[in-house]
This record gives sequence, C-alpha cells and structure tokens, in this order.
Amino acid sequence: MDILEHLEQVIAERRNASPDESYVAKLNARGMPVIARKLGEEGVEAAIATLSGSDEELVGEGADILFHLMVALQARGIAFADVLAELEKREGVSGLVEKASRSE
Amino acid sequence: MDILEHLEQVIAERRNASPDESYVAKLNARGMPVIARKLGEEGVEAAIATLSGSDEELVGEGADILFHLMVALQARGIAFADVLAELEKREGVSGLVEKASRSE
Amino acid sequence: MDILEHLEQVIAERRNASPDESYVAKLNARGMPVIARKLGEEGVEAAIATLSGSDEELVGEGADILFHLMVALQARGIAFADVLAELEKREGVSGLVEKASRSE
Amino acid sequence: MDILEHLEQVIAERRNASPDESYVAKLNARGMPVIARKLGEEGVEAAIATLSGSDEELVGEGADILFHLMVALQARGIAFADVLAELEKREGVSGLVEKASRSE
Repeated sequence: MDILEHLEQVIAERRNASPDESYVAKLNARGMPVIARKLGEEGVEAAIATLSGSDEELVGEGADILFHLMVALQARGIAFADVLAELEKREGVSGLVEKASRSE
Repeated sequence: MDILEHLEQVIAERRNASPDESYVAKLNARGMPVIARKLGEEGVEAAIATLSGSDEELVGEGADILFHLMVALQARGIAFADVLAELEKREGVSGLVEKASRSE
Repeated sequence: MDILEHLEQVIAERRNASPDESYVAKLNARGMPVIARKLGEEGVEAAIATLSGSDEELVGEGADILFHLMVALQARGIAFADVLAELEKREGVSGLVEKASRSE
Repeated sequence: MDILEHLEQVIAERRNASPDESYVAKLNARGMPVIARKLGEEGVEAAIATLSGSDEELVGEGADILFHLMVALQARGIAFADVLAELEKREGVSGLVEKASRSE
C-alpha cells in the first residue's frame, strides 16, 4: 500500500484517539487555528532548511509539511486524492501550455 | 504512473528549459533564496486557506505546497522518495509507540 | 512626530480611500484573510532576507512587516500603542527574571 | 526613553550574556538560521492571530514580531532606525504618489 494513502488512513484513525496518546488527536482537540498555524510554521521551517539545513533536515521538514498538510485537509474533510487530482489537472494544462509556447 | 513521480520527473526536465518558457526554470534561475521563499509563502497560504478558504482554495494551496516542495528538494539534489521513506520510518516508530502506550 | 505614529495615522486615513488609489484600502477591501496572508508572507520574506539578503533587502522587509502589522492591527481595531505597552510590560518582567536568575 | 530604542539597547546588551540566562543570547548562540526561523514563525503566528485570535493574542504576536525582528536586525548589524528611515522615505514617496494620482 502507498505510504501517503497509509498515512492518510492512520491520521483518520487517530483523530478519534485520546489527545494524551496521539499527536493527531491533540492537534484536532486544540482546533483549526492550531492546525493551520502548525502547517504555516512547517512551511517556514522547510524554507529555512532549503537554504541552510542539511539534507536530513530538509527531508525531515518535507515529511513534516506532508504530515501537517494531511492533518489540515482531514480536519476540513478533504481527501488527499483531491490534491493529487489538482496536480494532475495542472500538469495536463501546463503540458499544453509548454507545447503551445514551444510551437511559437 | 504515479502523479507525484510524474511531477518530479517533469520538474527535473524543466530545470533545463528557458526561464521564459518554464516557471520551474525561472525559479531555479532566480536561485535558492527565491525557491525557499516561495515554499515558505505557500505554507502561509495553505495555513490561511485552512482557516478561511473554500475547499477548492485549500486543495489548490495543497497542490502549490507539493509542487514547491519538489522544486526545493530537486534544487538541493534530494529525491522525493527520501521524504516518503522518512514518513514510512516515522510511521513505523509511531505505530510501535501507539502499540506500547495502548498496552499500558 | 514619530514615524510609527504617523504611519498609523496615514493607514487609518487611507482605509476610507478608493481601493484603486490606495494599497491600504485595497487590502481592507479584499478582507481579513488577505491582510493576514500578507503579514505571514512578510514574515517569511524577512526570514529569508535575514539569512541571504543584503542589508537593504532586510531593511526593506523589516519595513514591510511593520507596515502590514499595522494594517492588521488596524483592521482589528487595535492600537499600535497596545503592542508597545506589551513590550514594555514584558521588558519589566524580563528584567526582574534576569535579576532573579543572576542572584541565584 | 522610547520603548523600541530601549528594547534595541537591551537586546544588544543581552547578546553577550550566557545562553542559559538570556533568550537573546540563546538565539544568537544557535545561529542565524534559528533567528530567521523564529522571525518567520512569528509572522505565521501573527497571521493566524489576525484571523482567529483574541485582541490580547494579536497584541502578543505583534510584540513577538517586533522583538524577533530586532534580534534579526541586530544579528546582522543593522540599526532599527534604518527600518524607520525606510518607512519614512516610503511614506514621502507614497504621499507624493497619492497626491499625483489625486490630481489626475
């Protein structure tokens, strides 16, 4: 099974756990502003790691972003598959745009 | 083929395109601080969309984060697979932790 | 007259201007999520400039942060003087804390 | 004495303190990426507080931004007065721009 699908499923299961046992449950218990803040902070940390972190640090920040993005999507009732579909749609459009600009 | 693998491959190909034709090439031409800044800004935008955007807006911001994270990883020579492996590793550890706390 | 007081007054006056003529009016017309997003993005830009910008760039980002912080405060009906009062209060507390820790 | 001038002076004095006794010294000991990261994170927190925090929370985040902006400027050897001068310069330009657009 794909790790991202698995992660999404695990996050879904943990939302109903006790906040004392699960970080996901704790974030959801603290509410949407805390979930949003964590996602924004991970973006900052990934930006800093891009500029001055080690490879391990950037990999870790990338994992943190994906994790907190999934927590945010799920708190809003949105499937990660919708984000993948959006990327696929853009890629199609973008491919066409590149093709058009190349033929100029 | 998986959309994320496909996206990674497309970004790799576009790095060598003309900055006039490709957004990826343009970001790379502008340098690491601009790539880092864009990633950080996408984190902020996703955070705001989590709190007050429509579902479509949050999906769009999620796609933007994934895209710019991949651009950043690639500019640093890191494979997206390393981020997935990190998530898998954590999930394993976390699974064990949950199991341990449940058995208490 | 102090530049920060002056700036606060100017921002207050411009809120009622036409969005076509004034950036402040435009931000307020677009609403609180846009004002919040701009403030968060300025934080990211200042962070990047701290790490890899020129002195002029960091000074510019510092000015951007102060400006957008004031726009946000004003959109919420909060005086900048309240932020200064908070800093003064903390400084007093912090001074006491430093004193206490030094006497240990 | 102005609170911001006073804060700048206090931060300058604390840079040479022990990291165990002073938060400013600790940030400087951890290095520029940590100082930059904290500034970026404060931007995110202020953005979230603008959207969904209480007045007290936004005031607190505003104070946090000013404090960490000063720490960043000082770590780079830049005076806060340079940021104020930049705001003053812009205000002059902007005033002229507004005047010009009004006379159209």
